[in-house]
Amino acid sequence: MKAAVWHDVKDVRVEDVELKPAKDNEVVVRVSYAGICGSDLHEYLEGPVFIPVDKPDELTGGQAPLTMGHEFSGVIEKIGTDVTHFKVGDHVSINPTVTKGVSSDDLDVYDGYSFIGLSTDGGFTSFVNVPEENLYHLPEDFSLKLAATIEPTAVAVQAIKEGGLKFGEKVVIFGAGPIGVLVAAAAKAAGATKIIAVDLSEVRLNKALEMGATDVINPSQVSDTIAAIKEIIPNGADVSFEVAGVQPTFEQAIDATRARGTVVIVSIFAKPIAFDPMQLTNAGVKLTSTIAYSKETFEQTVELVSSGQIDVKPVITDVIELDNILSDGFESLTHDKSQAKILVDLTKE
Amino acid sequence: MKAAVWHDVKDVRVEDVELKPAKDNEVVVRVSYAGICGSDLHEYLEGPVFIPVDKPDELTGGQAPLTMGHEFSGVIEKIGTDVTHFKVGDHVSINPTVTKGVSSDDLDVYDGYSFIGLSTDGGFTSFVNVPEENLYHLPEDFSLKLAATIEPTAVAVQAIKEGGLKFGEKVVIFGAGPIGVLVAAAAKAAGATKIIAVDLSEVRLNKALEMGATDVINPSQVSDTIAAIKEIIPNGADVSFEVAGVQPTFEQAIDATRARGTVVIVSIFAKPIAFDPMQLTNAGVKLTSTIAYSKETFEQTVELVSSGQIDVKPVITDVIELDNILSDGFESLTHDKSQAKILVDLTKE
Repeated sequence: MKAAVWHDVKDVRVEDVELKPAKDNEVVVRVSYAGICGSDLHEYLEGPVFIPVDKPDELTGGQAPLTMGHEFSGVIEKIGTDVTHFKVGDHVSINPTVTKGVSSDDLDVYDGYSFIGLSTDGGFTSFVNVPEENLYHLPEDFSLKLAATIEPTAVAVQAIKEGGLKFGEKVVIFGAGPIGVLVAAAAKAAGATKIIAVDLSEVRLNKALEMGATDVINPSQVSDTIAAIKEIIPNGADVSFEVAGVQPTFEQAIDATRARGTVVIVSIFAKPIAFDPMQLTNAGVKLTSTIAYSKETFEQTVELVSSGQIDVKPVITDVIELDNILSDGFESLTHDKSQAKILVDLTKE
Repeated sequence: MKAAVWHDVKDVRVEDVELKPAKDNEVVVRVSYAGICGSDLHEYLEGPVFIPVDKPDELTGGQAPLTMGHEFSGVIEKIGTDVTHFKVGDHVSINPTVTKGVSSDDLDVYDGYSFIGLSTDGGFTSFVNVPEENLYHLPEDFSLKLAATIEPTAVAVQAIKEGGLKFGEKVVIFGAGPIGVLVAAAAKAAGATKIIAVDLSEVRLNKALEMGATDVINPSQVSDTIAAIKEIIPNGADVSFEVAGVQPTFEQAIDATRARGTVVIVSIFAKPIAFDPMQLTNAGVKLTSTIAYSKETFEQTVELVSSGQIDVKPVITDVIELDNILSDGFESLTHDKSQAKILVDLTKE
């Protein structure tokens, strides 16, 4: 079968691979759609980041070269002898996160984690072996295309939960990339009454509006971003989300938030920043962060997306062929700001 | 009457002043004891910080030169015609914080604040005018000397509350100066089961033990401070307190805390630090801060101190005369690490 295989930085090849034998606790998933994530881009452009190269991954045993793709949906093709809750033909969403599982669900990810599709073979191919515990049932009538966005949406849902957002509160989102706009959609589903997206790209701001933002601000079009935010929400945001990953938006996120409100760091920051702790002290703002999602959050996200409470449809900006994943996928996402989530269609493979 | 008056940086004079006429909503307090605070030292050594010099303070109307001293207890000498809940002879603790009072008690201080004793005449003298709303009753049989420590103790109580410390949890305190050791005492009163104090000064660590710390660590005596902490509390602290105000302890406070635990910034940082947001993201630690205290916290602190639940006695390391406030007070606190809280005895003035 064909697969997009990471060999090295800037060396991802679409080539023939053999499916490894599935274990007794695993199912074979026939992949329907698989989304391209920012992490995939990082592995392609400047990797390896997560991908194990020198020795097998501690949690999954995987090692490069390996098939990428950790945001995927599919249909069960075959089940292992120990699999009890799934049967051939079931539509499934895959939680790609592999953890040690020694701590409680909310703390689990902080003990370390790996991903199917980053540290062992993933979904940019026709068939993947997935442990039963990583599977979630999807309603038969729910679009397998939309279901491929559940994984990044779970990141957004976790971010909302980490921020302690309450029904009726007001939020600001700094950065309207794919995760930023999904945070807008999740905030809307959680009942936020103002959702302000801040980004330098008009096309991304339009996407944010499509996904649920009530207002948008382009810092290049206003003299004072914070003043523009305070015109809409005079007391400041109850919760702000830092999804841009640079010092100016980090500082703005604090300034945009009300006393005793919360800033959630969602971004992966590439380098340290200069930070004056007195900014936090004087503002009375709390700082927290989010990474990945708990099992509970993934399950809730399956429900929120498949029920339509979170409308993920607008985040999908293209559906491409596996053969063209480099040009139409990785390169397109790198250079075209109008792209949010690009799915690889594997139903025809 | 004699008073310690701030005229300029390094120019605090003990001189004769006249008490201004009290307003109808004020009482005249005959000061018993007044503590010297780190803020007083800052005003003396590198001020003005809070003290209004060029124009009257927005909230209090005060302006330098003014009488310092914001941590004091006393006995009511005279009451204004609008004063309803206090009478001559009442023993009182003074909450020196003056706020706008337009937000709820928990948010009030974030709208800006001034202090009696920093932005209008304070307690390093015999008599002070204090608005009724800044007064708290003290039990007649409670020591007016110990009562002079209520204000800094309220800072520690607020820090514990901001950290969300729960009964039975474990804490680490970075910095065992006067506020650090009061945080230890407050943590003990709140039912913390491990209270680890970290400081480079042995004499301060001994003071921390006296105030309630269960363990102490001197980073100069161990090869790895975090490892030393984890030997005592393997999972890390539920709540850590940054009371040192420098980058290394800021980073250590995050490293010492368990996933989903909280670091409370209590210090006033003098300058920005380099900060990697990924340290927070990977650790799953939450960051919050504290400044001053709410009215509710001040009232609770009056109760906690006067009941003896927080034993403040060991924090008082000297009691001095007003005439010697520069040599025995400000200079002593600047150069002698064995000093924690120095009180000025005004009962003989």
